[in-house]
Amino acid sequence: MSEIRQNIITRDWVIVATDRAKRPHEFLKKNASKIILPEYKAECPFCSGNEHLATKEFLRINGDNGWKVRVISNKFPALSPEGERFRWNIGINTTISGVGIHDVVVETPSHNAITALLPQIDIYYLLLAFKLRYEEIAKDHRMEMIVIFKNHGESAGTSLEHPHCQIAAIPVVPYQFRARIQEVMRYFDDHGDCIFCRTALDEIANGTRIIAENVSFIAFIPYAALTPFHIWIFPREHISSYEDTSDSELRDLAEILKRVLSMLYYGLGNPDYNFTIRSAPMAEKITKYYHWYLSIVPRISKQAGFEMGSGMYINTALSEESAEFLRNVEIPNIPL
Amino acid sequence: MSEIRQNIITRDWVIVATDRAKRPHEFLKKNASKIILPEYKAECPFCSGNEHLATKEFLRINGDNGWKVRVISNKFPALSPEGERFRWNIGINTTISGVGIHDVVVETPSHNAITALLPQIDIYYLLLAFKLRYEEIAKDHRMEMIVIFKNHGESAGTSLEHPHCQIAAIPVVPYQFRARIQEVMRYFDDHGDCIFCRTALDEIANGTRIIAENVSFIAFIPYAALTPFHIWIFPREHISSYEDTSDSELRDLAEILKRVLSMLYYGLGNPDYNFTIRSAPMAEKITKYYHWYLSIVPRISKQAGFEMGSGMYINTALSEESAEFLRNVEIPNIPL
Repeated sequence: MSEIRQNIITRDWVIVATDRAKRPHEFLKKNASKIILPEYKAECPFCSGNEHLATKEFLRINGDNGWKVRVISNKFPALSPEGERFRWNIGINTTISGVGIHDVVVETPSHNAITALLPQIDIYYLLLAFKLRYEEIAKDHRMEMIVIFKNHGESAGTSLEHPHCQIAAIPVVPYQFRARIQEVMRYFDDHGDCIFCRTALDEIANGTRIIAENVSFIAFIPYAALTPFHIWIFPREHISSYEDTSDSELRDLAEILKRVLSMLYYGLGNPDYNFTIRSAPMAEKITKYYHWYLSIVPRISKQAGFEMGSGMYINTALSEESAEFLRNVEIPNIPL
Repeated sequence: MSEIRQNIITRDWVIVATDRAKRPHEFLKKNASKIILPEYKAECPFCSGNEHLATKEFLRINGDNGWKVRVISNKFPALSPEGERFRWNIGINTTISGVGIHDVVVETPSHNAITALLPQIDIYYLLLAFKLRYEEIAKDHRMEMIVIFKNHGESAGTSLEHPHCQIAAIPVVPYQFRARIQEVMRYFDDHGDCIFCRTALDEIANGTRIIAENVSFIAFIPYAALTPFHIWIFPREHISSYEDTSDSELRDLAEILKRVLSMLYYGLGNPDYNFTIRSAPMAEKITKYYHWYLSIVPRISKQAGFEMGSGMYINTALSEESAEFLRNVEIPNIPL
């Protein structure tokens, strides 16, 4: 018989379909792309040498031989950086003017790099760029929340080859996010501790779902992972907002993120994935109940009518089995 | 500048990306499948004549020349119909035994039929089968909610060609569903009426987002549609549970559902889609605040890191423009 597990942080129920569970290797990406990309493309605005083709630059991190990471404005922004934030009502419908920020973070000058295989120091520069830009955007009082995310591969929603992430700032706290904050606040009031800290301690004590650890972070597959190989990376320290992460923690995050992305790359054949950094809304920068984290969702399953109609999930992978599989992935010893 | 609209029923915020909005015809499915399916396949357990290959039958609706609709058990059920419903805790984690019901509804004896093009009377039989099976399942006190849905096409999560829907009964009210119920209950307490009834009246008065109407139902694209061509069909009468829909209403639902699915079929080139019937949990069968409805979601856009990280949506279609486009789709005059 299947079991139905509750994800204590999202509060979602997940049917863990043990009877029809797939073994971890069955999630290996078939028909992995064999396209060999060039290191440079003349028409790519993200490539080194083509900076004049790109949009406005907000931030650049330089290395010994030119830039490492650039933050530029999105050429097709969903929201506009200019204008006032205001609301209006027509009958029961509410609308907010579309002010916001929508940046692109170019991860590397090389067109054909793979994020998982970037040198660890370059991943640190990427995470540092997120932080520096976050600090800048957080000064804009029209904004309520900053969302940092990566879409890797076509089924994860990107069509651009050159490795990049995005940073978006929005003028409202979305309902789903607010609901989660209310729930973790209630947990704090009822139990006196942060549910993320408690989950981290429980996962470490249990051990079966942990996939990587270092001094500052743990990476694990949640007890009720919403989808196969859904991974959470939690800072061990209680920090609500990504911008308050220290420099040494960012370096540790680079280490664990590279390791986990490499597990996916080598273990599952470079699957498409999204990652997002879930940082507190600006008005809740420092709280005892919210704890920022990074979530990685490989796009190896489909959500269909059942999920849409019920708000529940069906997961055909067992978290403990997936975690064991990832822990055992052999990662070639590439120099850092 | 874009605008950010709130969906008053789901409470989600949607960035309506007017600046990069696509025109309706740009959503036309490219590379529409040209595969011609046979009317009968020897190995298909859903085809007429192959009933012995299928799993247990729960319900059959007969016409003049054999059966019209069959409800059978799912060969690979996510939940098991046998066993007790019980819960257990390990630390902070909660689990429920995987009891539930998972049926397949075979819509037609013909392997190559298209739901949108079925005779209206056959769609009525399908909706009637939903109701009859719903009534039966609702007697099972282990179940809290019944979800009825269809996955049409590969990107909507199906790999089976023969037209079919699914009915699932679950032993818990999912968090997302409960949260919505709490919100509509609050609306009722604050305003004294059902937010679905109110929305229906507002949409009729406004008219720009309506795509079809008949005596018992309206079909429209919500003010803050979560995705392009997201369609809601509401009963005009306030009914909380699908099973309480009258026979004449079911006939009207067949008429409007066929019309709307035909608009998608002819207007957007047979896109993949899901539809779901969102009926009240069993314990809230009759309430003044919840109103069942049918939701259709064409799979013509992708959700990516932004949606995952924020819980907000970006919609590149304008509801009013999409509605106008669908209203103008020419539907060939096929005999009913």
